[in-house]
Amino acid sequence: MSADLVTSPDPSHPANLIPSLCAKFWHLGWVTGTGGGCSIRDDDLVYIAPSGVQKELMKASDLYVLSLAAQQSASLSRRQRVYLRAPESGLKPSQCTPLFLAAFTKRRAGCCIHTHSQWAVLVTLLLEAGSGEKEFRINNIEQIKGFGRGFEKSGNLGYHDTLVIPVIENTAHEEDLTEFLEEAMDRYPDTYAVLVRRHGVYVWGENVHKAKTQCESLDYLFQLAVEMKKLGLPWITQIEPVVPTRTE
Amino acid sequence: MSADLVTSPDPSHPANLIPSLCAKFWHLGWVTGTGGGCSIRDDDLVYIAPSGVQKELMKASDLYVLSLAAQQSASLSRRQRVYLRAPESGLKPSQCTPLFLAAFTKRRAGCCIHTHSQWAVLVTLLLEAGSGEKEFRINNIEQIKGFGRGFEKSGNLGYHDTLVIPVIENTAHEEDLTEFLEEAMDRYPDTYAVLVRRHGVYVWGENVHKAKTQCESLDYLFQLAVEMKKLGLPWITQIEPVVPTRTE
Amino acid sequence: MSADLVTSPDPSHPANLIPSLCAKFWHLGWVTGTGGGCSIRDDDLVYIAPSGVQKELMKASDLYVLSLAAQQSASLSRRQRVYLRAPESGLKPSQCTPLFLAAFTKRRAGCCIHTHSQWAVLVTLLLEAGSGEKEFRINNIEQIKGFGRGFEKSGNLGYHDTLVIPVIENTAHEEDLTEFLEEAMDRYPDTYAVLVRRHGVYVWGENVHKAKTQCESLDYLFQLAVEMKKLGLPWITQIEPVVPTRTE
Amino acid sequence: MSADLVTSPDPSHPANLIPSLCAKFWHLGWVTGTGGGCSIRDDDLVYIAPSGVQKELMKASDLYVLSLAAQQSASLSRRQRVYLRAPESGLKPSQCTPLFLAAFTKRRAGCCIHTHSQWAVLVTLLLEAGSGEKEFRINNIEQIKGFGRGFEKSGNLGYHDTLVIPVIENTAHEEDLTEFLEEAMDRYPDTYAVLVRRHGVYVWGENVHKAKTQCESLDYLFQLAVEMKKLGLPWITQIEPVVPTRTE
Repeated sequence: MSADLVTSPDPSHPANLIPSLCAKFWHLGWVTGTGGGCSIRDDDLVYIAPSGVQKELMKASDLYVLSLAAQQSASLSRRQRVYLRAPESGLKPSQCTPLFLAAFTKRRAGCCIHTHSQWAVLVTLLLEAGSGEKEFRINNIEQIKGFGRGFEKSGNLGYHDTLVIPVIENTAHEEDLTEFLEEAMDRYPDTYAVLVRRHGVYVWGENVHKAKTQCESLDYLFQLAVEMKKLGLPWITQIEPVVPTRTE
Repeated sequence: MSADLVTSPDPSHPANLIPSLCAKFWHLGWVTGTGGGCSIRDDDLVYIAPSGVQKELMKASDLYVLSLAAQQSASLSRRQRVYLRAPESGLKPSQCTPLFLAAFTKRRAGCCIHTHSQWAVLVTLLLEAGSGEKEFRINNIEQIKGFGRGFEKSGNLGYHDTLVIPVIENTAHEEDLTEFLEEAMDRYPDTYAVLVRRHGVYVWGENVHKAKTQCESLDYLFQLAVEMKKLGLPWITQIEPVVPTRTE
Repeated sequence: MSADLVTSPDPSHPANLIPSLCAKFWHLGWVTGTGGGCSIRDDDLVYIAPSGVQKELMKASDLYVLSLAAQQSASLSRRQRVYLRAPESGLKPSQCTPLFLAAFTKRRAGCCIHTHSQWAVLVTLLLEAGSGEKEFRINNIEQIKGFGRGFEKSGNLGYHDTLVIPVIENTAHEEDLTEFLEEAMDRYPDTYAVLVRRHGVYVWGENVHKAKTQCESLDYLFQLAVEMKKLGLPWITQIEPVVPTRTE
Repeated sequence: MSADLVTSPDPSHPANLIPSLCAKFWHLGWVTGTGGGCSIRDDDLVYIAPSGVQKELMKASDLYVLSLAAQQSASLSRRQRVYLRAPESGLKPSQCTPLFLAAFTKRRAGCCIHTHSQWAVLVTLLLEAGSGEKEFRINNIEQIKGFGRGFEKSGNLGYHDTLVIPVIENTAHEEDLTEFLEEAMDRYPDTYAVLVRRHGVYVWGENVHKAKTQCESLDYLFQLAVEMKKLGLPWITQIEPVVPTRTE
């Protein structure tokens, strides 16, 4: 029965999607050397990539599955989890688990992705070197339209809107990031991502499609921002909107 | 019948080509996070990638198809379209549609590609930082030969010719770019591409082969130009032509 | 019988793993133009990629195999080897052989990888230009957790730990690196890698999984370090640990 | 019969190798937008990729084949060729043909590769900006060992040897490069490559293996050289050889 949870002929089943997504992320340089991870929530079931696996070689049978409701009702320390199924391969649960759960419980996200993208790390380093800033801000770039306006808000950001991604400081133990991630979610109710200084980024979305495309758009903006810095170009600008003359 | 429009065993059929091209473009970083797009015109039929799809996962059944003649005869606002077929997946039409149509109607193009290439965006930012220039100009690079001399002109540009790509300012709504794109086409009758500041580039050609190879050559030149800027190398130079001594 | 040593239907057999790993390394730019190599130890048997082969095209039948015990007991010069099996293709043994053996004998490694990664080379050049430093040092980057604490030590490095990789000078003949590699192993008993100035890096691990993921993490850090240098960011910083307020 | 020249089930047949190599080169960014090319000589038969084809889509049936002896005996202008077989697809012969033939006739090469690699172009631009230098020189980098010592010489370059690649100025018409390429071959009898300013590089070797691996090693060195320039590191250095203390 527990095997059933990760056995499906459907390539879009979470147990098949996580390995195919992680292989794609490995090729993008987001989950190098077993870093980073991915989790999908299907109603009450949460599928999580395990710790310490080569992401391009992951199999459905490597996944952990837990019940969100059971997890929340159980009066457990944040370090304790009750899993509906664990891999026989002996792989450990991901240290990202409480952070993924934060996105599912506080934002009702359907998918959460954690990358160690070098562009994300470099952006946090550039902000730190600036004045220890706690926000990545960029505006007037078309790709910003790739982000939703916010939790329970319809529509996407506009070209002239400023995308703001909070930055939290890294902790020695990944689970200890949870309270700071949750604080950032509270302070930035509309954000779909949180940068972790010198570590990487957490990105989520209503569903796999939105989490993945928002993660791609964000990595695009991080890389662009690093190249802009090399070329002495500012991340924030004032631009007069261009108004079409045609009326229709 | 509408299904027939996108059902063919021929890999070179537009309905099969657009998904395979978009998957290739995704790997090149041109259509990250559902950005960018592609359209092919087969005589009167126009095949268009939909909005908001993961480009590496697109299927023929996701495509929109419209009749160019019907579209032009219909007295419709530019925002209204009559489609011969729409995807059942509920995907929205691409906001790039009127821009693709401009290439088909004003240039009789057979294919138009829109990328969010970071190199294209960086080139527009470097020009803006320079003096708000409205043209990207580069000469004396072999790859310039990859471009036709112009609309209804035979032959390609030469090594010593200056490639000139107009830059238009971005608008809040992509459709609003149309009039500015069309103006740029009028002012630059021989260009095969228009850069959009802080957004990306539109590239077209007589057929898929020419649109795709011109788009590749242009992205090559944009990346080269950005690297040249990092290294303090000018984009425009005066070079004495080298004349062969042999007579034949 | 000698054929049997490299004939197996199991993709995780060393004779099948080395070619698939080397093809992956080629795509990562680690073993360009026949540079670099890889060796796996299975108990007493050592499988070694040959010299001068295109790494993305290697076949199991191209491999050399030797017995570690026989090799050690034989009173041979370091240049002489007794192979249990050699390729019929006439490919020469790898000049890296004595260096791979050093990792197997001095560290009981299960796998050793040698790359010519440009990031590794650039890091050694930056250190040389600094003050001829003999160590690459970086701290306070999450990816550092990708490394074990050291030979026969359990657990991994922590986020605040400083990763130290010794650098040895390159020699005209690769075999001559062996004594310097072994000296570095003696001086840095806990290191899993040694950089070779203007050449590349040797990385090992208890097994293939650990050697490969440590090599990935190290290349990630080398590339990050080069980008940090371009952006004027220091590799070593003093950071106050962030302590979680929650008690559990 | 002419079809037979390019019809073989053997993947290592030149007619099958050229398409598979060109697809690989396209993914390396060497033959973007139909630029660059490749030719293989099998005894008297010369197989040549045609002009204007998308390199990742090339087929064996697209190739031209000519007889080297017939070509040389025929008293033809360098622009005239007698082909044993031409593609039915109507693709034009490559303008690189006389340059490939120069490598086959003057060096008895078995394969010649022409890339538009951006790293090659940037290296020629950096030399031009320096003082219009006509040579790329680099030493004390391990990858230099990837090159043969020279035409009809045995062995490879050593770590401390200086790799010298001549640079010729680009001409308006690619065929016109031939006399300058041949002059460079005469002045640099041991070189396996010639850089073309603002254009790319020609690389050859005794056989496909050597041409391809030397081209990879050279591109590796060009990219490394560009990165070194960004980081203020010199291409030429004086280094005291490291001598092993062990005697064997």
